[in-house]
Amino acid sequence: MSSVKDEIEKANKEAVERMMDSEPVWVDVGIAREKLPEMKDYLLLHAGPPITWEKASGPMRGAILGAILYEEWADTPEEAEKLVTSGQVVLEPTHIHNAVGPMAGIISPRMPVYEVYDKKYGNKTYSNFNEGIGKVLRYGAYSKEVIDRLRWIESTVAPILQATIREIVKDRGGISLKSIIAQALQMGDDCHNRYNAATSLLLKEVTPYMIDSGFDKQTIREVYSFLAGNNFTTLNLGMAAAKAMTLAAHKIKYSTIVTVMSRNGTETGIW
Amino acid sequence: MSSVKDEIEKANKEAVERMMDSEPVWVDVGIAREKLPEMKDYLLLHAGPPITWEKASGPMRGAILGAILYEEWADTPEEAEKLVTSGQVVLEPTHIHNAVGPMAGIISPRMPVYEVYDKKYGNKTYSNFNEGIGKVLRYGAYSKEVIDRLRWIESTVAPILQATIREIVKDRGGISLKSIIAQALQMGDDCHNRYNAATSLLLKEVTPYMIDSGFDKQTIREVYSFLAGNNFTTLNLGMAAAKAMTLAAHKIKYSTIVTVMSRNGTETGIW
Repeated sequence: MSSVKDEIEKANKEAVERMMDSEPVWVDVGIAREKLPEMKDYLLLHAGPPITWEKASGPMRGAILGAILYEEWADTPEEAEKLVTSGQVVLEPTHIHNAVGPMAGIISPRMPVYEVYDKKYGNKTYSNFNEGIGKVLRYGAYSKEVIDRLRWIESTVAPILQATIREIVKDRGGISLKSIIAQALQMGDDCHNRYNAATSLLLKEVTPYMIDSGFDKQTIREVYSFLAGNNFTTLNLGMAAAKAMTLAAHKIKYSTIVTVMSRNGTETGIW
Repeated sequence: MSSVKDEIEKANKEAVERMMDSEPVWVDVGIAREKLPEMKDYLLLHAGPPITWEKASGPMRGAILGAILYEEWADTPEEAEKLVTSGQVVLEPTHIHNAVGPMAGIISPRMPVYEVYDKKYGNKTYSNFNEGIGKVLRYGAYSKEVIDRLRWIESTVAPILQATIREIVKDRGGISLKSIIAQALQMGDDCHNRYNAATSLLLKEVTPYMIDSGFDKQTIREVYSFLAGNNFTTLNLGMAAAKAMTLAAHKIKYSTIVTVMSRNGTETGIW
């Protein structure tokens, strides 16, 4: 009979192998409510381990309020706060929904999400869209321009990217994110806070399909410029890819490898 | 009175400074006959120092024949060769026309060229378009597919890039090639035989304008895919930029710095 140490080593080896063998491919864009199996009205997903309003940091609170205004569940930040403190709006970690998001990581039901499919292990993971830098929801901003941009992403960016990725899937099965990340790492990106090469490489893949996506040229140009003008465009896809890879190594009996470390601005959780 | 050595050192310092201060900007696309001041019918420009048909290597000969077929000065390679050996078609180095081209470097009158303008010193330099890899004129291939591709570049790629760069010039003066090259060098390109990052970065700059260039979407998609599918797309612009930078240091009295080294497949010339 093998010792527990042997079991752990074997399990950890398997965990690492599964992470490395995972093949995350961007395959779709959809609305969170339709894509995430457990998503529902009055549910907000957030980064890190479970948190309450009382313990939430300023930026996390701001992002929660912004998402409620974006969803039109409330008209003012004050009303929005009451919905959370009264328990009408429920907060859950993105990770238990196989989803991820940068910073506050808020995903609300009507937000568009990327769907990433692990061709090797069959898992599906999700991330929201990147808003750019400056005043953005993920840093806790919820002024009108932030909400307006989120609505424009929903009404304009998401439909074009949905049509684009669906044509790519028909043609060649999707966009291999490991291939883009592997190249980008050799081109100076860290694929955490620098996604310049990755975003350029991703755009080279999707642009032919985007041009031909059936939308008018002016709108395509605006969406292209938005995506190309933000080097963090590919961050959220990279995060969903990382989620898929680590998910492949989740729940392996005896494995002591931590597959997720994620913070909510107050505490860090491990899975 | 200063010594000749002092004069040389001063001149060389000036040469280097002028090369570094040069600001090559891609400003236009046009047809060689219209853009290059001394270009004319039955004149072919080639890489390196002056060469005769007799001394030309196989690939250089092939490229010369291909250019004559492309120009429709002859219908067969045999007729084309006679035009050169009889002296009806004249061969001159690209460099005396402030132009450059990779490998055989053939530029013929009806070929589209990039125009690069040195904002600092006022020089204009030129390069032909990159055809991709495989069977291409610059390596001496002149089969039907090579000539057809050159004609498609002339009829389809060049007009779209011309409309695109002219909009960019109106909007922001052109595309700074030093900026693209500087970034690309930090992203793993050598900007000689690897232009992957440079091509991605260039495309990010031009694509919004290309989408809006007034051509139909299918054609834009084809042209985008051609440019994005060839990592050497930016090579020819990089060469024209290098030509502009070195030209800024040309003919400085007492300077011993060689500003051009270029080969024609048989011999190497220096300027």
